[in-house]
Amino acid sequence: MAFDLSDLRTDLTLEAATIARQGLAGLPGVETQEEERHGIGVYRVRVVDEAGRRATGKAIGRYVTIEAAGLLRPDRALQERVARVLAAELGALLSLAPDAHVLVVGLGNSNATPDALGPRVVDQVLVTRHLRRRTPRDLAGGLRTVSAVAPGVLGQTGIETSDLITGIVRQVRPDAVIAVDALAARGIGRICSSIQLADTGIQPGSGVGSHRAGITKETLGVAQVVAVGIPTVVHAMTIAMDTVDLVAERVGGPLRDLPVEVKRRIVEDVLSPTVGDLMVTPKEIDELIADMARLVAAGINAALHPAVADRPFLL
Amino acid sequence: MAFDLSDLRTDLTLEAATIARQGLAGLPGVETQEEERHGIGVYRVRVVDEAGRRATGKAIGRYVTIEAAGLLRPDRALQERVARVLAAELGALLSLAPDAHVLVVGLGNSNATPDALGPRVVDQVLVTRHLRRRTPRDLAGGLRTVSAVAPGVLGQTGIETSDLITGIVRQVRPDAVIAVDALAARGIGRICSSIQLADTGIQPGSGVGSHRAGITKETLGVAQVVAVGIPTVVHAMTIAMDTVDLVAERVGGPLRDLPVEVKRRIVEDVLSPTVGDLMVTPKEIDELIADMARLVAAGINAALHPAVADRPFLL
Amino acid sequence: MAFDLSDLRTDLTLEAATIARQGLAGLPGVETQEEERHGIGVYRVRVVDEAGRRATGKAIGRYVTIEAAGLLRPDRALQERVARVLAAELGALLSLAPDAHVLVVGLGNSNATPDALGPRVVDQVLVTRHLRRRTPRDLAGGLRTVSAVAPGVLGQTGIETSDLITGIVRQVRPDAVIAVDALAARGIGRICSSIQLADTGIQPGSGVGSHRAGITKETLGVAQVVAVGIPTVVHAMTIAMDTVDLVAERVGGPLRDLPVEVKRRIVEDVLSPTVGDLMVTPKEIDELIADMARLVAAGINAALHPAVADRPFLL
Amino acid sequence: MAFDLSDLRTDLTLEAATIARQGLAGLPGVETQEEERHGIGVYRVRVVDEAGRRATGKAIGRYVTIEAAGLLRPDRALQERVARVLAAELGALLSLAPDAHVLVVGLGNSNATPDALGPRVVDQVLVTRHLRRRTPRDLAGGLRTVSAVAPGVLGQTGIETSDLITGIVRQVRPDAVIAVDALAARGIGRICSSIQLADTGIQPGSGVGSHRAGITKETLGVAQVVAVGIPTVVHAMTIAMDTVDLVAERVGGPLRDLPVEVKRRIVEDVLSPTVGDLMVTPKEIDELIADMARLVAAGINAALHPAVADRPFLL
Repeated sequence: MAFDLSDLRTDLTLEAATIARQGLAGLPGVETQEEERHGIGVYRVRVVDEAGRRATGKAIGRYVTIEAAGLLRPDRALQERVARVLAAELGALLSLAPDAHVLVVGLGNSNATPDALGPRVVDQVLVTRHLRRRTPRDLAGGLRTVSAVAPGVLGQTGIETSDLITGIVRQVRPDAVIAVDALAARGIGRICSSIQLADTGIQPGSGVGSHRAGITKETLGVAQVVAVGIPTVVHAMTIAMDTVDLVAERVGGPLRDLPVEVKRRIVEDVLSPTVGDLMVTPKEIDELIADMARLVAAGINAALHPAVADRPFLL
Repeated sequence: MAFDLSDLRTDLTLEAATIARQGLAGLPGVETQEEERHGIGVYRVRVVDEAGRRATGKAIGRYVTIEAAGLLRPDRALQERVARVLAAELGALLSLAPDAHVLVVGLGNSNATPDALGPRVVDQVLVTRHLRRRTPRDLAGGLRTVSAVAPGVLGQTGIETSDLITGIVRQVRPDAVIAVDALAARGIGRICSSIQLADTGIQPGSGVGSHRAGITKETLGVAQVVAVGIPTVVHAMTIAMDTVDLVAERVGGPLRDLPVEVKRRIVEDVLSPTVGDLMVTPKEIDELIADMARLVAAGINAALHPAVADRPFLL
Repeated sequence: MAFDLSDLRTDLTLEAATIARQGLAGLPGVETQEEERHGIGVYRVRVVDEAGRRATGKAIGRYVTIEAAGLLRPDRALQERVARVLAAELGALLSLAPDAHVLVVGLGNSNATPDALGPRVVDQVLVTRHLRRRTPRDLAGGLRTVSAVAPGVLGQTGIETSDLITGIVRQVRPDAVIAVDALAARGIGRICSSIQLADTGIQPGSGVGSHRAGITKETLGVAQVVAVGIPTVVHAMTIAMDTVDLVAERVGGPLRDLPVEVKRRIVEDVLSPTVGDLMVTPKEIDELIADMARLVAAGINAALHPAVADRPFLL
Repeated sequence: MAFDLSDLRTDLTLEAATIARQGLAGLPGVETQEEERHGIGVYRVRVVDEAGRRATGKAIGRYVTIEAAGLLRPDRALQERVARVLAAELGALLSLAPDAHVLVVGLGNSNATPDALGPRVVDQVLVTRHLRRRTPRDLAGGLRTVSAVAPGVLGQTGIETSDLITGIVRQVRPDAVIAVDALAARGIGRICSSIQLADTGIQPGSGVGSHRAGITKETLGVAQVVAVGIPTVVHAMTIAMDTVDLVAERVGGPLRDLPVEVKRRIVEDVLSPTVGDLMVTPKEIDELIADMARLVAAGINAALHPAVADRPFLL
């Protein structure tokens, strides 16, 4: 799915950590795994079959959440460790021949800071496809064939992002696509606190009014599509709604039965006249996006290029 | 006062429109005036004397609010009209000899988009001081002597902004200072909906924990200091608090008597763990700041340079 | 042709002014026209047939050069006049039905200032295609169907720019393409002094080692492809070579017969160790590119959207 | 001295490497030292007394040039090594008490890429002065008291950079100043190939027409002023003049006696109409400046903050 900022939303599909914690582990058709790597939580969920799909409401596939609360602070040492975990998890999700060609797609709007994660990652991906025209497509030098594009968002181009990517993919025929995107978090505490991966690509929006196509193996006609997302903003609406719920919980009594309709009207009135288009970000968002983009690019570079993985990451 | 983003707050001092509407017009020592210029509301409040000061809690001086709700939309024709009104009001607040030297100070952090209004205005101010060293300091060519600095915020420099400006002012001795800054709005609807002027400069923060000096005639030792501000963000706390209040108002009953302490705790819990450092902005904030900076710079250029005022603004 | 900065070169194909002046006017199969519009020189050359093609070495088609030496200075009034001329000439080159869909392609590297003209133009093009899905594709509101992409350069993406554009064009099927690019000037005096148009698109490079495809009607399978270029840099090599030639001319004698091979070696030694990758730009290049991008975007917007053309340009 | 891009020039004062090589080592009042650290050349020259001053034409003081030709390539490992050498040399030039306050000044224009080195370094300097108001000014935590400003250039502010810095220094009274600036190289091969240090600060320009004050211990009234510069551009004039000289050398004969006046006219004609304001830069200048700024900031941070020096640099 093509995200512009208005689309930034909690992509439940990817939140493996939540699934694992909610005890979905025992569901039929669902396998979960939990691990601590370098002091960083790694949660893996596999929706194995149709039973799992029905039980979770999620597409069959593998989901990984890398949790590291400290990412919000400018801690380079932690960022380096998380980048290494990302490289390992990404490498495990992908199944690449030495001569495979991988296209990295940076989704989002380079001119809107909290949505610029994808384009900034693309700026730092080690692109090699154009360098190896005349050499055999093997792993000589420890570098894989990598290309990268940042197609922009619908509001910038007038074209669905999925259409732009489909057109490019049909022309250059990569073996795998990695799609990087900024996500909307479901709460303040989740901003820049995790990296979410899914080998199902980005599923089409199911919400009312959303008619957009996804970015998946099926829509692109590519064997593998892995999505990489980091929550960077919270919708103002989420905060207002959370506030209403917390008031109800604390005060109790009649308030607990406040109809959803009333709640919604209160939230709309608070956010009027711009309901839905307001983002909540930490004040250091410019710096945060720069840090996260460097981290994700380092992880992708190490996952794709063995020559890079062997050296210090030098974020 | 040195604003970094954590300081962005509703500067009540400047909200002349609110004062005018709240019927403060009848107060002793307070004069108000309301005007419609080119379809744009202009509210002027004068705190005349000590009585007015006590009545309003504001420093003696003149306050102007230019209101134009449509500024949030990318409407160049409206922006041009507002820039002309700004030029006129700014010209009226300042009292400049033809050979006066005006220093424009852009407050805020150029690396944090919603706080970058001041630095971006400075980028577009028509600076002339260095061009007229050898020519007599008159209005030859219709250009006044103008200089401009963007000193950065405390978090960038480690130095109070007021100290940086004081040092510079003592060295270059301008006749007047115009200080431009981004403000925190008291509600969503106020973002980029008004321009606020005050010839009292920027008063020292009076809030708890705020120990910062102001940027005023007194602190700088300059005859005139005019502040120009535009609300660009709302604190997430404001939205959460507004939500609590609206729930109380709509639901009524026992909720109406909810102790402030309980409200505050609810808000803190919603925004945890980053209470106070979260900003709410429209998703088009990058574009909005660019538009507002161009508008304010055009208004300042026309107010200071008669040669510019006579020509089309060409925002 | 995919330009990255190393490809920035004098695109002779587009220099209609030079052709007109060199008295090519009398050649068989070539029609020329010269006009002064608003104090701006407009040179039109038409290569009519195979005879004209042989005589000029250029593809059959129409070429327009808009000359305005003053563009190097930040003169907004002149920029506005040039934008209007550009809109008129672009409108004359294109032949668009009211419901035509035009794709604007910004060539170049957004992260390399002198090469960023194309991407910055795309940032300011009035994109409408996504707004009119459900309304009939007519000229309601005076706005045409416009989309825009900035695909990046080979060094960023690893993919030939012509391949990226071909893939996108096949997917979204525009009726016409406008390709905007920064050019390398053949001399200092030409930087930002003209705008060059051609309805032949961008022809494939013919230089040694250049194996790149063009961006033309034929390669894209689109009925119309118009190129818009502005010279923004000069190769350091050009300046060194010009110097050698001028020394020879001034000093005369044996120097006049200096073998090309010797000249080339001198130039290489001066520019060693980085011959070929050095650009010469005015020191105000950041500002110049911003001005030129705004000008070209204004011209394109007015050429495509009748509703825009009727209003002041408000560059 | 206030540099805007037109001032960027070879600062001979700083080129210790050249002095060392030119056999100035034997001059009276001049001490030289040459070292290889981590495969990087370090040249130190000390102008000891008045005799040395007359012999070299340079102010009494210490000059260090760190040479590393490979810096032009994006080699992170080399950059890290050079940053460590810079930290060591800077530490040796400065003589700081544990509780000393150091002001880092980033000279140059943040809106003109090749001149933006200083401001970009300031963006990455670890600023602490505002954090330690209430703690004793010692080395608790291994962090020194550091502040940083990027005052802008004359063309931006209308104020001499030396005046801005003097005003600020008088207000905040640092114990030492580090002034970082981009320099104009004397030849292509020198761009980003060395880092130049001098504990004489930045001496006033001695060239024709240069009336600007320096940034020195004397002008600022500060005990220590160390300049850090990296050549980032070459004047187009330098390249044209080098070409003329090389033609003369290669062709010989009457050309060898070409009067300087004739040479100068040739160069002016080649660069007409913009002689003097043209810069030559590698096409990757945006990336180069980013790399150099990170390197210099890392060196400064490690030189000033012992806590940083002990950890990996993580450029």
